[in-house]
Amino acid sequence: MSTVLIEPVARLIEAFARLPGIGPKTAQRLTYHLLRAPDAEARSLAVALIAVRDEVVFCERCFNISDAPLCPICRDPARDASRLCVVEEPLDVLALERTAEFRGLYHVLHGAISPIDGIGPERLKIRELLERADHAARDGEPLAEVILATNPTLEGEATAMYLAERLDGVAGSVTRIARGLPVGGDLEDADEVTLIRALQGRRSIA
Amino acid sequence: MSTVLIEPVARLIEAFARLPGIGPKTAQRLTYHLLRAPDAEARSLAVALIAVRDEVVFCERCFNISDAPLCPICRDPARDASRLCVVEEPLDVLALERTAEFRGLYHVLHGAISPIDGIGPERLKIRELLERADHAARDGEPLAEVILATNPTLEGEATAMYLAERLDGVAGSVTRIARGLPVGGDLEDADEVTLIRALQGRRSIA
Repeated sequence: MSTVLIEPVARLIEAFARLPGIGPKTAQRLTYHLLRAPDAEARSLAVALIAVRDEVVFCERCFNISDAPLCPICRDPARDASRLCVVEEPLDVLALERTAEFRGLYHVLHGAISPIDGIGPERLKIRELLERADHAARDGEPLAEVILATNPTLEGEATAMYLAERLDGVAGSVTRIARGLPVGGDLEDADEVTLIRALQGRRSIA
Repeated sequence: MSTVLIEPVARLIEAFARLPGIGPKTAQRLTYHLLRAPDAEARSLAVALIAVRDEVVFCERCFNISDAPLCPICRDPARDASRLCVVEEPLDVLALERTAEFRGLYHVLHGAISPIDGIGPERLKIRELLERADHAARDGEPLAEVILATNPTLEGEATAMYLAERLDGVAGSVTRIARGLPVGGDLEDADEVTLIRALQGRRSIA
């Protein structure tokens, strides 16, 4: 088969297959699609790939992706700089922004603490987060709230616990996003841990 | 959200989402992966995309993908030029080559007859197939066999029927790949049409 698969096609299949969630079959299909698609389609993807690497940086304050030293959210004077939402990944910022529920600033850790994977606090943007909180306090405008919005996973919880401890006394309040039943979900489908969290987090409604 | 998603990132997400089978969520994940992957990974994908468009052509004899006027299979003197396997897409050639069962040449139609989609025989490489068969006959070396390996779908069957009629008398024999139960499959999971085909295609084993 290797004699049949010509070199440039094999290389593109390999490059696609290296992407997360793209198996060899999908990589083949994408490659053959692009072979026959309008020329502009393949080229615009190539150009967009190069542009993303050449033009995108991380915000020097919150470490979200950005096209300038400060990201659009950090640049926005209408955002409430006294509230910080801490997330693991830039994609989490996008998800939260879609809700339009939070009008403060973010801090992207770029991962979660995971001893098993050898990821300690020093590998994440945790020092930078503590410095942000410290600076705010020293400037006489301490953070009113730090929302810990790391994932509801083992690693995310461990990271939230670690941060809660380190931020204690530096920020006005440190909160954790609620865990419970997903809206539209079915109680009988929920796993036990989620159900326990849903019960523990119950609130009075009358 | 549009103010939050910076331009080069939005463009790459869009370019990925235009690919078949890639939804907006996957497009986002791929984009964020490439933002943080080693620089070489994003660039090698971009280079492979350009190369595939610049270097890949269709074989002028069988219309398989190729890096030269004739594809590696048509160039190979060890292949049996008297047997032709007719398929819909270049990916089908790959799948058949993996079996190492067929040592003849191919002919890629680039689709199947589908009146509903406005695809008539003239839109496919059918004229070229009939010319190949004619030339072989005129050269005194008529094709010994043409295997119709179009998909076992409505369109693939219609295409096979159409070709069988047109090739009658021009090639030694015209055959159709077998339809039946997939190996490793379960009889009770098979659809009715497949079961009917499996019964119709039954062969004596003793």
